[in-house]
Amino acid sequence: MRVVVDAMGGDNAPLEIVKGAVEAAEKYRAEIVLCGRGEEILRALEKLGKMDLPRGVEIANASETVEMEDSPSTVFKTKPDSSMAVGLKMVRDGAADAFVSAGSTGALLACATFIVRRISGIRRAALALPIPTAKDDFVLIDCGANTECTPEYLLQFAYMGRFYAENLMGVKDPRIALLNIGAEESKGTDLQRGAYALLKEAGEKGEINFIGNLEPKEAAGGVCDVLVADGFSGNIMLKAVEGYGGLIMGEIKSMFLKSGKTKLAAAMLKDELTELKKKYSGADVGGTALLGISRPVIKAHGSSKASDICAAVGQAVKTAEMDVPGKIKEHLEQRRQES
Amino acid sequence: MRVVVDAMGGDNAPLEIVKGAVEAAEKYRAEIVLCGRGEEILRALEKLGKMDLPRGVEIANASETVEMEDSPSTVFKTKPDSSMAVGLKMVRDGAADAFVSAGSTGALLACATFIVRRISGIRRAALALPIPTAKDDFVLIDCGANTECTPEYLLQFAYMGRFYAENLMGVKDPRIALLNIGAEESKGTDLQRGAYALLKEAGEKGEINFIGNLEPKEAAGGVCDVLVADGFSGNIMLKAVEGYGGLIMGEIKSMFLKSGKTKLAAAMLKDELTELKKKYSGADVGGTALLGISRPVIKAHGSSKASDICAAVGQAVKTAEMDVPGKIKEHLEQRRQES
Repeated sequence: MRVVVDAMGGDNAPLEIVKGAVEAAEKYRAEIVLCGRGEEILRALEKLGKMDLPRGVEIANASETVEMEDSPSTVFKTKPDSSMAVGLKMVRDGAADAFVSAGSTGALLACATFIVRRISGIRRAALALPIPTAKDDFVLIDCGANTECTPEYLLQFAYMGRFYAENLMGVKDPRIALLNIGAEESKGTDLQRGAYALLKEAGEKGEINFIGNLEPKEAAGGVCDVLVADGFSGNIMLKAVEGYGGLIMGEIKSMFLKSGKTKLAAAMLKDELTELKKKYSGADVGGTALLGISRPVIKAHGSSKASDICAAVGQAVKTAEMDVPGKIKEHLEQRRQES
Repeated sequence: MRVVVDAMGGDNAPLEIVKGAVEAAEKYRAEIVLCGRGEEILRALEKLGKMDLPRGVEIANASETVEMEDSPSTVFKTKPDSSMAVGLKMVRDGAADAFVSAGSTGALLACATFIVRRISGIRRAALALPIPTAKDDFVLIDCGANTECTPEYLLQFAYMGRFYAENLMGVKDPRIALLNIGAEESKGTDLQRGAYALLKEAGEKGEINFIGNLEPKEAAGGVCDVLVADGFSGNIMLKAVEGYGGLIMGEIKSMFLKSGKTKLAAAMLKDELTELKKKYSGADVGGTALLGISRPVIKAHGSSKASDICAAVGQAVKTAEMDVPGKIKEHLEQRRQES
């Protein structure tokens, strides 16, 4: 298993990225290719006390870096030697099995689409992420890859979300809902109404188990397995959950630090608090596959620290071992033959 | 002070509505007009042990009820004798000072717009709600009244939000941000890009203190005073914050109920926990004014219980006493003369 890690992408590049990738090489017994400016990567390794390349770690030199200011849709042309482009070409050409980046989501989506290509028949790749609830997690798809969507894209997100829930979360006949601001069929904009009609039709044909519109508040109760959204509102929901989850957990923490008595209470609840914090921080996921791309490409959070990058490499290994892209392709072909 | 309460609107109508309104009559020394089917209101009062009309409480009979299935845009025509329409006409005609309803947001917006009318120059009324953060609250506007928006509406929401923050929250020169999925000017859809340009221009003219795009996660940190959004994404954010705030507080509660030891810890932190729960449940607000309507109209949460309705009447009294609609009108006229 050979995973290319974009050493230059994300808020904490290159140091945290390099650190997390080196940890992952050991943890997952994977060969790691650190892609980016060779000198900067070597300097980061030195800072980590590694004067030689650790076992199982290589460097692939790339002279350019994708910046947040770069236009996502053209950066694969304007910076052909970026760490993102070089790493993705390795994956396309079979020189590696998966790619991990904490860089710009838009740029990663565009570069992956133009360099690695989408699975034939998929109109837009999407980001799927498990979101905690009062019961089991649900998959939110798309949570940020596609700002502008059509009802047809949302129908495809539902199929990919179903695949994710069934194969990566082990849910049988997942309940699929549409993110909206009310339960009624007429709620939302033209996009939601159009998507509702398509999802309802697919449900009536028995292709998916469509349960209707769902508000974020109801979704928190754990009543669906897949929540379909356009990338804009999906991202608003994701960041609100992350932001307020983090905020409330932070307030709980300071509440416990108030006095000797409350510190004692915190000590008594240590395990439960750690579990709760983990549940709402999203840190154990690390990264998420760009579903619909023909090879494993993992987007890690922009603010990823070493532990997140390590977890994202874990996701990459899992996605490649399970051959998620290949399975989605098979699934699509099967549906085509049936219809 | 005379407040009309829509006795038939909301998930818990009429019992909880009537109960909350009766409580409010005493608490705020306001005259309350319960609007709806007279018999049902009397039956609700009986259930509350009140065989006679309590002091300061009257009934205005209305034979029809706005249902969630009714088309919001036409219900003021198709059901002219609904509790919403009858109550709003009383406010329009000066027979009452304010109107409170927990009924359908869309129907309330349309009925208020067509019956009471908007302030001259305002293109769309909006819902503004204070949202908690790590520091002070910010106002989210619009949080659900207008599903489809234009950049111009969002600019007006910024002006109304500024007014709200200055006059109802006492913030000087409020920091105004645009809800988006990233900080860069190019982020979002055409709507956000268009609104960004208008807000930036207004900022450069010194009309508002525009600080740029903000993601929900950053907003949770308390870095803005007004967060401008279209009603769709604003509502997604609001419901995600409410839903996950409630969920996490619920998990904290069950964590404390695990054993004798943890129950002891909970007892030690009782005050802090109550405060935190209050902060993230939104119950103390109760309702929010439809900003831009020419008379005080308060939307209470659809799931309002008696205490929420009581708080919403409090908001109505405050909005009427401060003459918020009159002040917005003055503010607009002043701006018109200046430009």
